[in-house]
Amino acid sequence: MKIGIDLGGTNIAGGLVSDDGKLLYKTSTPTVTDSEGALLSAIAKVINEIKAQADGAEIDAVGIGVPGHADDKTGIVVYCNNIPFVNTDLAGYIKKETGLPCTIGNDANAAALAEVLFGAARGYQNAVMITLGTGIGAGIIFNKKLFTGCNGAAGEIGHMVICPDGIECNCGRRGCYELYGSATALKRQTREAMKKHPESKLWEFAKTLDGVTGKTAFDAMRAGDKAGAEVVNQYVRYLSSGVIDIINLLFPEAIIFGGGVAKEGEALLAPLREIVDRECYSLHGNKTHFLSAELGNDAGIIGAAFLGE
Amino acid sequence: MKIGIDLGGTNIAGGLVSDDGKLLYKTSTPTVTDSEGALLSAIAKVINEIKAQADGAEIDAVGIGVPGHADDKTGIVVYCNNIPFVNTDLAGYIKKETGLPCTIGNDANAAALAEVLFGAARGYQNAVMITLGTGIGAGIIFNKKLFTGCNGAAGEIGHMVICPDGIECNCGRRGCYELYGSATALKRQTREAMKKHPESKLWEFAKTLDGVTGKTAFDAMRAGDKAGAEVVNQYVRYLSSGVIDIINLLFPEAIIFGGGVAKEGEALLAPLREIVDRECYSLHGNKTHFLSAELGNDAGIIGAAFLGE
Repeated sequence: MKIGIDLGGTNIAGGLVSDDGKLLYKTSTPTVTDSEGALLSAIAKVINEIKAQADGAEIDAVGIGVPGHADDKTGIVVYCNNIPFVNTDLAGYIKKETGLPCTIGNDANAAALAEVLFGAARGYQNAVMITLGTGIGAGIIFNKKLFTGCNGAAGEIGHMVICPDGIECNCGRRGCYELYGSATALKRQTREAMKKHPESKLWEFAKTLDGVTGKTAFDAMRAGDKAGAEVVNQYVRYLSSGVIDIINLLFPEAIIFGGGVAKEGEALLAPLREIVDRECYSLHGNKTHFLSAELGNDAGIIGAAFLGE
Repeated sequence: MKIGIDLGGTNIAGGLVSDDGKLLYKTSTPTVTDSEGALLSAIAKVINEIKAQADGAEIDAVGIGVPGHADDKTGIVVYCNNIPFVNTDLAGYIKKETGLPCTIGNDANAAALAEVLFGAARGYQNAVMITLGTGIGAGIIFNKKLFTGCNGAAGEIGHMVICPDGIECNCGRRGCYELYGSATALKRQTREAMKKHPESKLWEFAKTLDGVTGKTAFDAMRAGDKAGAEVVNQYVRYLSSGVIDIINLLFPEAIIFGGGVAKEGEALLAPLREIVDRECYSLHGNKTHFLSAELGNDAGIIGAAFLGE
């Protein structure tokens, strides 16, 4: 029996997870951001609450997925954007407070691990999960284990440059992948198309510029709207650029797409596959399979529970 | 005792390699490109010649590095640009002809393996070797083992796009990394600078446009030439683009640079490191070390011998 914690900027979600990846109990509490100490203590409280639900069964591991740079080897959260952790010995604190072995990792990595162990890619040994959200995150799995690099930070594909001299990124480079391929980027591209095409059906679905979601352009395309189809086509082209780079570099057996945009399924994956088949370097031999994530929001909790495996 | 073969477009180089990576005997013969059968038989002949040098010591492995797409899992050479192998069961043939177990792999991968096992990166578990030659090749090592992806083709970093809408590549994309960061690209950039700057010292070192090498711009820079320094600066910027992408994705402990250009050592690596330190995503925690390859041309033979490990 394991405990998984998905630490987010808004909530601390956690649960009791069986050894075969079933979420047996789930809880959530708002993230305290007043101070490092208050947040540490809130996380320990959630873990102890979940532990109490185990009916005395042995908990052999606690794992915590963190929205930032977590060094899995040292147990230290190096830095998070929206959370008061800087060089915080999170694993050490939790071990001391709960008496349980604790491993930490990045939240996108935890989700990737869950999808490969128990979700969409459970039949694969080597896979990359790309999460299309506010930014673009990724988790890299080799031989059913996470690859985190020399400092726990591997998988930052959102900051590969796909448009040199493109939009400025807060990472210090220009034209980063996530500025063109994330859900945020898709929404921006949709709003730009709406301004250019006041006649387009994009307006019917979004109502206002503020009403745009990652679904708007896909909905308009399905309703036969030309501007909507153009937004989707251009977005898929941007997305393909990073996907082809990853395939040329790693040739994973599978790429799993997660996040809201990935819910479009084949409407997203079919045109993406077409571009990749045409442009990826090795046109011979096995191809990388494209999959949609299956575990949704629970992936973060389930994967966190297995970070120590 | 092992046998390593480095199959090139010009020569079949091979040798007897000790279990601790020493090259004990080395031989070379021109590559026959008349037919698949003639080349297979030439390779078997080289292996039998090397075997005869082992003084009866047991040969426990033969490995062959191939300049193209070799599937290490099936033993089949899928495709090579300059060699008459298409879906050729090279490992199967060699086993039959020599009675020895045989593993095949890509030649850049073999060199990377040698540098991590016995060369520049022998102290590291996870590393990427980038070879700057006619194109850009790479080998990816995790836990001292090659990572080759689902079809043996992983490591094609030369075909990551760094300049969308840039120069057309024979792979079907535009703006591929190797069109800007390879030795070939550096030579092209040097010739362009020579045409623009007839007063530059580049002319003193190259004499003619045909006399340009990967060293010309570095030599001119060291002699205080402004155009030479500009060529080097721009080349290092191009090179950094792909290096940062790889670091953001994999955060390897080390990147080893091989090929002629890498012989510039710190003249290349110091400015590269400066850009990477500024622009790579995670500015915290451990950094990726930059190293120059140590084993030179022997890396291909030595690494090939260990492809089956």
